Amino acid sequence: MTQPAAAGCGTLHLVGVGPGDPELITVRGARLCQAARHLAYFAKRGEAGHARRTAAPYLAAPAEIRLEFPYTTERPSTDPLYREALRTFYAEAAARIGAVLAAGEDVVLLCEGDPFFYGSGLHLIERIAPRFPIAVTPGISSVSAAAARLAAPLVRGGDVFTVLPALLPDAALRTHLRQADALAILKLGRHLPRLRALLAEEGLLSRTFYAERITHAAERLLPLADCPPEMSAPYFSLLLIRPPGEAE
Amino acid sequence: MTQPAAAGCGTLHLVGVGPGDPELITVRGARLCQAARHLAYFAKRGEAGHARRTAAPYLAAPAEIRLEFPYTTERPSTDPLYREALRTFYAEAAARIGAVLAAGEDVVLLCEGDPFFYGSGLHLIERIAPRFPIAVTPGISSVSAAAARLAAPLVRGGDVFTVLPALLPDAALRTHLRQADALAILKLGRHLPRLRALLAEEGLLSRTFYAERITHAAERLLPLADCPPEMSAPYFSLLLIRPPGEAE
Repeated sequence: MTQPAAAGCGTLHLVGVGPGDPELITVRGARLCQAARHLAYFAKRGEAGHARRTAAPYLAAPAEIRLEFPYTTERPSTDPLYREALRTFYAEAAARIGAVLAAGEDVVLLCEGDPFFYGSGLHLIERIAPRFPIAVTPGISSVSAAAARLAAPLVRGGDVFTVLPALLPDAALRTHLRQADALAILKLGRHLPRLRALLAEEGLLSRTFYAERITHAAERLLPLADCPPEMSAPYFSLLLIRPPGEAE
Repeated sequence: MTQPAAAGCGTLHLVGVGPGDPELITVRGARLCQAARHLAYFAKRGEAGHARRTAAPYLAAPAEIRLEFPYTTERPSTDPLYREALRTFYAEAAARIGAVLAAGEDVVLLCEGDPFFYGSGLHLIERIAPRFPIAVTPGISSVSAAAARLAAPLVRGGDVFTVLPALLPDAALRTHLRQADALAILKLGRHLPRLRALLAEEGLLSRTFYAERITHAAERLLPLADCPPEMSAPYFSLLLIRPPGEAE
Protein backbone atom coordinates (compact mmCIF):
# COMPACT_ATOMS: atom_id res chain seq x y z
CA MET A 1 0.00 0.00 0.00
CA THR A 2 2.74 2.41 -0.97
CA GLN A 3 0.98 5.64 -1.67
CA PRO A 4 0.91 7.01 -5.22
CA ALA A 5 3.41 9.81 -5.71
CA ALA A 6 1.81 13.23 -5.73
CA ALA A 7 2.59 14.96 -9.00
CA GLY A 8 6.12 16.34 -8.91
CA CYS A 9 6.72 15.55 -5.24
CA GLY A 10 9.59 13.54 -3.85
CA THR A 11 9.09 10.44 -1.68
CA LEU A 12 10.11 10.14 1.96
CA HIS A 13 11.90 6.81 2.39
CA LEU A 14 11.91 5.59 5.99
CA VAL A 15 14.85 3.22 6.28
CA GLY A 16 15.24 1.00 9.34
CA VAL A 17 18.96 0.64 9.99
CA GLY A 18 18.66 -2.09 12.64
CA PRO A 19 20.23 -2.25 16.10
CA GLY A 20 23.66 -0.77 15.37
CA ASP A 21 25.80 -3.28 13.47
CA PRO A 22 26.00 -1.83 9.93
CA GLU A 23 25.72 -5.37 8.49
CA LEU A 24 22.25 -5.74 10.00
CA ILE A 25 20.69 -3.19 7.66
CA THR A 26 18.79 -4.78 4.76
CA VAL A 27 20.21 -4.89 1.25
CA ARG A 28 17.49 -2.46 0.19
CA GLY A 29 18.26 -0.14 3.09
CA ALA A 30 21.94 -0.10 2.11
CA ARG A 31 21.02 0.60 -1.52
CA LEU A 32 18.75 3.50 -0.55
CA CYS A 33 21.50 4.96 1.65
CA GLN A 34 24.03 4.71 -1.17
CA ALA A 35 21.67 6.46 -3.59
CA ALA A 36 20.47 9.13 -1.14
CA ARG A 37 20.94 12.75 -2.18
CA HIS A 38 19.13 14.05 0.92
CA LEU A 39 19.63 12.25 4.23
CA ALA A 40 17.66 13.06 7.39
CA TYR A 41 18.43 11.64 10.84
CA PHE A 42 17.86 12.34 14.52
CA ALA A 43 20.71 13.13 16.89
CA LYS A 44 21.27 14.34 20.42
CA ARG A 45 23.26 17.52 20.90
CA GLY A 46 26.99 16.83 20.63
CA GLU A 47 26.49 13.32 19.21
CA ALA A 48 26.84 11.96 15.69
CA GLY A 49 23.44 10.29 15.83
CA HIS A 50 23.01 6.57 16.37
CA ALA A 51 21.27 5.78 13.06
CA ARG A 52 23.68 8.05 11.14
CA ARG A 53 26.65 6.15 12.57
CA THR A 54 25.10 2.79 11.67
CA ALA A 55 24.47 3.84 8.06
CA ALA A 56 27.85 5.58 7.60
CA PRO A 57 29.54 2.78 5.59
CA TYR A 58 26.86 3.04 2.88
CA LEU A 59 26.65 6.81 2.41
CA ALA A 60 27.98 8.69 -0.58
CA ALA A 61 27.98 12.45 0.17
CA PRO A 62 24.31 13.35 0.65
CA ALA A 63 23.04 16.73 1.76
CA GLU A 64 22.33 16.16 5.45
CA ILE A 65 19.22 17.19 7.36
CA ARG A 66 20.34 16.82 10.96
CA LEU A 67 17.38 16.82 13.36
CA GLU A 68 18.80 17.69 16.78
CA PHE A 69 16.57 17.01 19.78
CA PRO A 70 15.95 20.09 21.94
CA TYR A 71 17.16 18.49 25.20
CA THR A 72 20.10 16.20 25.81
CA THR A 73 18.85 14.89 29.14
CA GLU A 74 15.43 13.41 29.66
CA ARG A 75 12.71 15.39 31.35
CA PRO A 76 9.45 13.85 32.44
CA SER A 77 7.22 13.57 29.39
CA THR A 78 4.49 15.27 31.42
CA ASP A 79 6.47 18.53 31.70
CA PRO A 80 4.51 21.04 29.55
CA LEU A 81 7.69 22.91 28.56
CA TYR A 82 9.26 19.70 27.32
CA ARG A 83 6.16 18.72 25.36
CA GLU A 84 5.93 22.14 23.78
CA ALA A 85 9.60 22.11 22.80
CA LEU A 86 9.16 18.68 21.21
CA ARG A 87 6.10 19.82 19.27
CA THR A 88 8.08 22.75 17.87
CA PHE A 89 10.98 20.44 17.08
CA TYR A 90 8.84 17.99 15.10
CA ALA A 91 7.00 20.79 13.28
CA GLU A 92 10.30 22.35 12.21
CA ALA A 93 11.74 18.99 11.20
CA ALA A 94 8.65 18.26 9.08
CA ALA A 95 8.95 21.68 7.45
CA ARG A 96 12.64 21.15 6.57
CA ILE A 97 11.99 17.72 5.05
CA GLY A 98 8.76 18.87 3.41
CA ALA A 99 10.57 21.68 1.60
CA VAL A 100 12.89 19.16 -0.08
CA LEU A 101 10.03 16.80 -0.97
CA ALA A 102 7.99 19.67 -2.37
CA ALA A 103 10.93 20.55 -4.63
CA GLY A 104 10.64 17.07 -6.17
CA GLU A 105 13.60 15.46 -4.39
CA ASP A 106 13.46 12.19 -2.43
CA VAL A 107 14.61 12.14 1.21
CA VAL A 108 15.93 9.14 3.15
CA LEU A 109 15.04 9.30 6.86
CA LEU A 110 17.21 6.92 8.89
CA CYS A 111 15.36 5.14 11.70
CA GLU A 112 16.93 3.08 14.49
CA GLY A 113 15.75 -0.53 14.54
CA ASP A 114 12.48 -0.93 12.66
CA PRO A 115 10.67 2.34 11.75
CA PHE A 116 7.22 1.12 12.82
CA PHE A 117 8.18 -0.86 15.92
CA TYR A 118 8.31 1.77 18.68
CA GLY A 119 10.09 4.10 16.27
CA SER A 120 11.22 7.55 17.43
CA GLY A 121 10.36 9.09 14.06
CA LEU A 122 6.61 8.51 14.28
CA HIS A 123 5.72 12.05 15.38
CA LEU A 124 7.56 13.33 12.35
CA ILE A 125 6.00 10.83 9.96
CA GLU A 126 2.49 11.76 11.09
CA ARG A 127 3.17 15.32 10.02
CA ILE A 128 4.55 14.34 6.60
CA ALA A 129 2.49 11.30 5.54
CA PRO A 130 -0.74 13.23 4.86
CA ARG A 131 1.03 15.54 2.41
CA PHE A 132 3.73 13.47 0.71
CA PRO A 133 4.19 9.85 -0.39
CA ILE A 134 6.18 7.68 2.00
CA ALA A 135 7.80 4.27 1.47
CA VAL A 136 9.07 2.11 4.31
CA THR A 137 12.02 -0.27 4.43
CA PRO A 138 11.67 -2.41 7.56
CA GLY A 139 14.64 -3.00 9.86
CA ILE A 140 15.84 -5.51 12.44
CA SER A 141 14.41 -4.57 15.85
CA SER A 142 16.51 -4.65 19.01
CA VAL A 143 14.25 -7.46 20.26
CA SER A 144 15.03 -9.63 17.27
CA ALA A 145 18.75 -8.80 17.45
CA ALA A 146 18.92 -9.61 21.17
CA ALA A 147 17.26 -13.01 20.65
CA ALA A 148 19.75 -13.73 17.86
CA ARG A 149 22.70 -12.82 20.09
CA LEU A 150 21.32 -15.02 22.87
CA ALA A 151 21.30 -17.86 20.31
CA ALA A 152 18.15 -19.18 21.94
CA PRO A 153 14.67 -19.26 20.37
CA LEU A 154 12.39 -16.49 21.63
CA VAL A 155 8.95 -17.69 20.49
CA ARG A 156 7.80 -21.03 19.12
CA GLY A 157 4.73 -22.32 17.27
CA GLY A 158 1.91 -21.88 19.79
CA ASP A 159 3.43 -19.16 22.00
CA VAL A 160 1.87 -15.80 22.82
CA PHE A 161 4.48 -13.03 22.65
CA THR A 162 3.98 -9.60 24.20
CA VAL A 163 6.07 -6.44 24.08
CA LEU A 164 5.72 -4.04 27.02
CA PRO A 165 7.06 -0.54 27.60
CA ALA A 166 8.75 -0.47 31.03
CA LEU A 167 6.82 2.63 32.07
CA LEU A 168 3.55 0.68 32.53
CA PRO A 169 2.26 0.54 36.12
CA ASP A 170 2.89 -2.61 38.15
CA ALA A 171 -0.64 -3.97 37.86
CA ALA A 172 -0.62 -3.82 34.04
CA LEU A 173 2.84 -5.38 33.89
CA ARG A 174 1.73 -8.24 36.16
CA THR A 175 -1.33 -8.98 34.03
CA HIS A 176 0.72 -9.31 30.88
CA LEU A 177 3.55 -11.23 32.56
CA ARG A 178 0.99 -13.86 33.62
CA GLN A 179 -0.71 -14.17 30.25
CA ALA A 180 2.11 -14.28 27.69
CA ASP A 181 4.54 -17.16 27.12
CA ALA A 182 7.44 -14.93 26.10
CA LEU A 183 7.92 -11.17 26.46
CA ALA A 184 10.18 -8.26 25.77
CA ILE A 185 10.23 -5.16 27.99
CA LEU A 186 11.58 -2.01 26.36
CA LYS A 187 12.92 1.40 27.47
CA LEU A 188 14.13 0.22 30.86
CA GLY A 189 16.02 3.23 32.20
CA ARG A 190 15.17 3.99 35.83
CA HIS A 191 12.44 1.31 35.82
CA LEU A 192 14.87 -1.61 35.98
CA PRO A 193 14.98 -2.11 39.80
CA ARG A 194 11.16 -2.05 39.95
CA LEU A 195 10.91 -4.53 37.06
CA ARG A 196 13.42 -6.83 38.64
CA ALA A 197 11.46 -6.99 41.89
CA LEU A 198 8.28 -7.64 39.95
CA LEU A 199 9.83 -10.41 37.85
CA ALA A 200 11.22 -12.07 40.97
CA GLU A 201 7.80 -11.97 42.64
CA GLU A 202 6.21 -13.50 39.53
CA GLY A 203 8.79 -16.30 39.46
CA LEU A 204 10.21 -15.19 36.10
CA LEU A 205 13.75 -14.19 37.06
CA SER A 206 15.30 -17.45 35.82
CA ARG A 207 13.78 -16.93 32.35
CA THR A 208 14.84 -13.26 32.00
CA PHE A 209 17.87 -11.88 30.17
CA TYR A 210 19.15 -8.31 30.25
CA ALA A 211 20.37 -6.92 26.92
CA GLU A 212 22.15 -3.56 26.49
CA ARG A 213 23.54 -1.93 23.32
CA ILE A 214 23.09 -5.14 21.32
CA THR A 215 25.61 -5.59 18.46
CA HIS A 216 27.60 -2.52 19.64
CA ALA A 217 31.15 -2.74 20.92
CA ALA A 218 29.81 -2.12 24.46
CA GLU A 219 27.19 -4.88 24.23
CA ARG A 220 26.05 -6.50 27.50
CA LEU A 221 23.92 -9.62 27.52
CA LEU A 222 23.45 -11.66 30.68
CA PRO A 223 20.83 -13.27 32.91
CA LEU A 224 19.01 -10.53 34.82
CA ALA A 225 19.76 -12.41 38.04
CA ASP A 226 23.48 -11.77 37.41
CA CYS A 227 23.06 -7.97 37.11
CA PRO A 228 23.96 -5.77 40.13
CA PRO A 229 20.68 -5.33 42.08
CA GLU A 230 20.42 -1.53 41.96
CA MET A 231 21.72 -1.14 38.42
CA SER A 232 19.94 1.39 36.23
CA ALA A 233 19.85 0.90 32.49
CA PRO A 234 20.39 3.11 29.45
CA TYR A 235 17.78 3.79 26.78
CA PHE A 236 19.17 1.10 24.46
CA SER A 237 18.39 -1.77 26.78
CA LEU A 238 15.65 -4.34 27.11
CA LEU A 239 14.63 -7.49 28.92
CA LEU A 240 13.80 -10.75 27.15
CA ILE A 241 11.67 -13.25 29.02
CA ARG A 242 11.95 -16.67 27.39
CA PRO A 243 9.09 -19.18 27.18
CA PRO A 244 8.78 -21.77 29.96
CA GLY A 245 10.07 -25.31 29.55
CA GLU A 246 11.34 -26.81 26.36
CA ALA A 247 9.85 -26.76 22.87
CA GLU A 248 7.35 -29.51 22.17
CA MET B 1 26.39 -15.01 23.48
CA THR B 2 27.68 -16.80 20.41
CA GLN B 3 28.92 -20.13 21.64
CA PRO B 4 32.62 -20.96 21.49
CA ALA B 5 33.43 -23.22 18.55
CA ALA B 6 34.04 -26.80 19.57
CA ALA B 7 37.53 -27.85 18.48
CA GLY B 8 37.50 -28.66 14.78
CA CYS B 9 33.74 -28.34 14.35
CA GLY B 10 31.96 -26.15 11.86
CA THR B 11 29.36 -23.56 12.87
CA LEU B 12 25.68 -23.68 11.94
CA HIS B 13 24.70 -20.21 10.70
CA LEU B 14 20.96 -19.58 10.93
CA VAL B 15 20.20 -16.86 8.40
CA GLY B 16 16.84 -15.11 8.40
CA VAL B 17 16.01 -14.29 4.78
CA GLY B 18 12.98 -12.09 5.55
CA PRO B 19 9.47 -12.23 4.05
CA GLY B 20 10.32 -13.04 0.43
CA ASP B 21 11.73 -9.97 -1.33
CA PRO B 22 15.45 -10.79 -1.79
CA GLU B 23 16.34 -7.17 -0.97
CA LEU B 24 14.91 -7.56 2.55
CA ILE B 25 17.67 -9.93 3.66
CA THR B 26 20.35 -8.21 5.75
CA VAL B 27 23.75 -7.32 4.33
CA ARG B 28 25.25 -9.95 6.63
CA GLY B 29 22.73 -12.55 5.52
CA ALA B 30 23.57 -11.87 1.88
CA ARG B 31 27.29 -12.14 2.63
CA LEU B 32 26.86 -15.46 4.43
CA CYS B 33 24.81 -16.81 1.52
CA GLN B 34 27.46 -15.74 -0.98
CA ALA B 35 30.20 -17.43 1.04
CA ALA B 36 28.23 -20.60 1.85
CA ARG B 37 29.80 -23.90 0.79
CA HIS B 38 26.99 -25.92 2.41
CA LEU B 39 23.45 -24.62 2.22
CA ALA B 40 20.49 -26.18 4.06
CA TYR B 41 16.84 -25.23 3.58
CA PHE B 42 13.34 -26.57 4.07
CA ALA B 43 11.02 -27.26 1.14
CA LYS B 44 7.70 -28.91 0.45
CA ARG B 45 7.64 -31.79 -2.03
CA GLY B 46 7.66 -30.48 -5.58
CA GLU B 47 8.56 -26.91 -4.56
CA ALA B 48 11.82 -25.00 -4.73
CA GLY B 49 11.59 -23.91 -1.11
CA HIS B 50 10.49 -20.45 -0.10
CA ALA B 51 13.68 -19.43 1.71
CA ARG B 52 15.84 -20.97 -1.04
CA ARG B 53 14.04 -18.87 -3.66
CA THR B 54 14.47 -15.70 -1.60
CA ALA B 55 18.22 -16.26 -1.18
CA ALA B 56 18.81 -17.37 -4.80
CA PRO B 57 20.32 -14.07 -6.06
CA TYR B 58 23.11 -14.31 -3.48
CA LEU B 59 24.16 -17.94 -3.86
CA ALA B 60 27.36 -19.12 -5.52
CA ALA B 61 27.18 -22.89 -6.09
CA PRO B 62 26.99 -24.41 -2.62
CA ALA B 63 26.44 -28.07 -1.87
CA GLU B 64 22.73 -28.19 -1.03
CA ILE B 65 21.10 -29.99 1.88
CA ARG B 66 17.45 -29.99 0.87
CA LEU B 67 15.18 -30.84 3.81
CA GLU B 68 11.89 -31.99 2.33
CA PHE B 69 8.90 -32.13 4.66
CA PRO B 70 7.24 -35.56 4.80
CA TYR B 71 3.76 -34.27 3.89
CA THR B 72 2.71 -31.68 1.37
CA THR B 73 -0.75 -31.16 2.82
CA GLU B 74 -1.39 -30.31 6.44
CA ARG B 75 -2.66 -32.91 8.84
CA PRO B 76 -3.86 -32.10 12.34
CA SER B 77 -0.81 -31.70 14.53
CA THR B 78 -2.47 -34.09 17.00
CA ASP B 79 -2.30 -37.00 14.52
CA PRO B 80 0.26 -39.42 16.04
CA LEU B 81 1.43 -40.59 12.60
CA TYR B 82 2.10 -37.01 11.55
CA ARG B 83 4.00 -36.24 14.74
CA GLU B 84 6.09 -39.38 14.40
CA ALA B 85 6.91 -38.63 10.76
CA LEU B 86 8.00 -35.11 11.73
CA ARG B 87 10.18 -36.40 14.55
CA THR B 88 11.94 -38.74 12.13
CA PHE B 89 12.28 -35.91 9.61
CA TYR B 90 13.94 -33.55 12.10
CA ALA B 91 16.21 -36.30 13.45
CA GLU B 92 17.41 -37.15 9.94
CA ALA B 93 17.84 -33.47 9.04
CA ALA B 94 19.93 -32.93 12.18
CA ALA B 95 22.04 -35.97 11.31
CA ARG B 96 22.73 -34.74 7.76
CA ILE B 97 23.73 -31.25 8.92
CA GLY B 98 25.61 -32.62 11.92
CA ALA B 99 27.78 -34.79 9.65
CA VAL B 100 28.97 -31.71 7.74
CA LEU B 101 29.59 -29.72 10.93
CA ALA B 102 31.48 -32.63 12.47
CA ALA B 103 33.74 -32.67 9.41
CA GLY B 104 34.74 -29.08 10.23
CA GLU B 105 32.65 -27.33 7.59
CA ASP B 106 30.22 -24.47 8.27
CA VAL B 107 26.58 -24.81 7.17
CA VAL B 108 24.16 -21.98 6.37
CA LEU B 109 20.55 -22.85 7.25
CA LEU B 110 18.10 -20.51 5.49
CA CYS B 111 15.13 -19.52 7.64
CA GLU B 112 12.02 -17.69 6.45
CA GLY B 113 11.44 -14.36 8.20
CA ASP B 114 13.36 -14.18 11.47
CA PRO B 115 14.82 -17.50 12.72
CA PHE B 116 13.71 -17.00 16.33
CA PHE B 117 10.30 -15.42 15.73
CA TYR B 118 7.96 -18.40 15.23
CA GLY B 119 10.64 -20.02 13.06
CA SER B 120 9.98 -23.36 11.42
CA GLY B 121 13.58 -24.48 12.00
CA LEU B 122 13.40 -24.53 15.80
CA HIS B 123 12.88 -28.29 16.11
CA LEU B 124 16.00 -28.78 14.06
CA ILE B 125 18.02 -26.23 15.98
CA GLU B 126 17.17 -27.86 19.30
CA ARG B 127 18.76 -31.05 18.05
CA ILE B 128 21.94 -29.34 16.82
CA ALA B 129 22.59 -26.55 19.31
CA PRO B 130 23.65 -28.81 22.18
CA ARG B 131 26.40 -30.40 20.06
CA PHE B 132 27.64 -27.71 17.69
CA PRO B 133 28.15 -23.94 17.81
CA ILE B 134 25.40 -21.89 16.22
CA ALA B 135 25.36 -18.23 15.15
CA VAL B 136 22.18 -16.37 14.26
CA THR B 137 21.60 -13.60 11.73
CA PRO B 138 18.19 -12.06 12.44
CA GLY B 139 15.74 -11.38 9.63
CA ILE B 140 12.75 -9.16 8.86
CA SER B 141 9.58 -10.83 10.17
CA SER B 142 6.38 -10.94 8.14
CA VAL B 143 4.79 -8.73 10.82
CA SER B 144 7.39 -6.01 10.36
CA ALA B 145 7.20 -6.29 6.56
CA ALA B 146 3.40 -6.06 6.58
CA ALA B 147 3.45 -2.92 8.73
CA ALA B 148 6.00 -1.39 6.35
CA ARG B 149 3.83 -2.19 3.33
CA LEU B 150 0.80 -0.69 5.08
CA ALA B 151 2.91 2.47 5.49
CA ALA B 152 1.18 3.04 8.82
CA PRO B 153 2.86 2.84 12.26
CA LEU B 154 2.14 -0.42 14.10
CA VAL B 155 3.20 0.40 17.68
CA ARG B 156 4.07 3.71 19.32
CA GLY B 157 5.78 4.78 22.53
CA GLY B 158 3.49 3.52 25.28
CA ASP B 159 1.68 0.76 23.38
CA VAL B 160 1.44 -2.89 24.40
CA PHE B 161 1.94 -5.17 21.38
CA THR B 162 0.95 -8.84 21.36
CA VAL B 163 1.47 -11.58 18.79
CA LEU B 164 -1.04 -14.45 18.81
CA PRO B 165 -1.13 -17.75 16.92
CA ALA B 166 -4.57 -18.10 15.29
CA LEU B 167 -5.04 -21.60 16.71
CA LEU B 168 -5.67 -20.26 20.26
CA PRO B 169 -9.19 -20.88 21.59
CA ASP B 170 -11.69 -18.02 21.48
CA ALA B 171 -11.50 -17.20 25.19
CA ALA B 172 -7.72 -16.74 25.11
CA LEU B 173 -7.91 -14.66 21.94
CA ARG B 174 -10.56 -12.40 23.50
CA THR B 175 -8.47 -11.82 26.62
CA HIS B 176 -5.47 -10.68 24.60
CA LEU B 177 -7.53 -8.64 22.13
CA ARG B 178 -8.88 -6.64 25.07
CA GLN B 179 -5.54 -6.05 26.78
CA ALA B 180 -3.15 -5.11 23.98
CA ASP B 181 -3.11 -1.85 22.03
CA ALA B 182 -1.87 -3.41 18.79
CA LEU B 183 -1.66 -7.06 17.76
CA ALA B 184 -0.62 -9.45 15.05
CA ILE B 185 -2.34 -12.81 14.54
CA LEU B 186 -0.29 -15.42 12.68
CA LYS B 187 -0.90 -18.71 10.82
CA LEU B 188 -4.47 -17.91 9.86
CA GLY B 189 -5.40 -20.78 7.51
CA ARG B 190 -8.83 -22.21 8.27
CA HIS B 191 -9.14 -20.03 11.40
CA LEU B 192 -9.84 -16.82 9.47
CA PRO B 193 -13.69 -16.92 9.48
CA ARG B 194 -13.68 -17.58 13.25
CA LEU B 195 -11.21 -14.75 13.86
CA ARG B 196 -13.21 -12.37 11.75
CA ALA B 197 -16.38 -13.03 13.75
CA LEU B 198 -14.44 -12.58 16.98
CA LEU B 199 -12.86 -9.30 15.86
CA ALA B 200 -16.24 -7.96 14.79
CA GLU B 201 -17.75 -8.85 18.17
CA GLU B 202 -14.86 -7.11 19.93
CA GLY B 203 -15.32 -3.97 17.84
CA LEU B 204 -11.89 -4.31 16.22
CA LEU B 205 -12.79 -4.90 12.58
CA SER B 206 -12.13 -1.29 11.55
CA ARG B 207 -8.58 -1.47 12.94
CA THR B 208 -7.70 -4.83 11.31
CA PHE B 209 -5.80 -5.43 8.07
CA TYR B 210 -5.36 -8.73 6.24
CA ALA B 211 -1.91 -9.38 4.77
CA GLU B 212 -1.02 -12.29 2.48
CA ARG B 213 2.31 -13.17 0.80
CA ILE B 214 3.80 -9.81 1.74
CA THR B 215 6.48 -8.53 -0.70
CA HIS B 216 5.71 -11.38 -3.15
CA ALA B 217 4.26 -10.82 -6.61
CA ALA B 218 0.92 -12.19 -5.35
CA GLU B 219 0.82 -9.88 -2.30
CA ARG B 220 -2.61 -8.99 -0.90
CA LEU B 221 -3.04 -6.29 1.71
CA LEU B 222 -6.46 -4.86 2.53
CA PRO B 223 -8.83 -4.04 5.39
CA LEU B 224 -10.22 -7.30 6.79
CA ALA B 225 -13.72 -5.85 6.38
CA ASP B 226 -13.14 -5.80 2.60
CA CYS B 227 -12.23 -9.53 2.41
CA PRO B 228 -14.91 -12.00 1.21
CA PRO B 229 -16.65 -13.24 4.40
CA GLU B 230 -15.92 -16.97 4.05
CA MET B 231 -12.42 -16.60 2.65
CA SER B 232 -9.81 -19.01 3.98
CA ALA B 233 -6.20 -17.95 4.11
CA PRO B 234 -2.87 -19.55 3.19
CA TYR B 235 -0.05 -20.20 5.64
CA PHE B 236 1.77 -17.01 4.67
CA SER B 237 -0.92 -14.68 5.89
CA LEU B 238 -1.54 -12.63 9.02
CA LEU B 239 -3.77 -10.00 10.56
CA LEU B 240 -2.48 -6.68 11.87
CA ILE B 241 -4.63 -4.85 14.39
CA ARG B 242 -3.57 -1.23 14.62
CA PRO B 243 -3.66 0.80 17.85
CA PRO B 244 -6.77 2.86 18.59
CA GLY B 245 -6.98 6.58 17.83
CA GLU B 246 -4.10 8.73 16.75
CA ALA B 247 -0.60 9.00 18.18
CA GLU B 248 -0.26 11.46 21.05
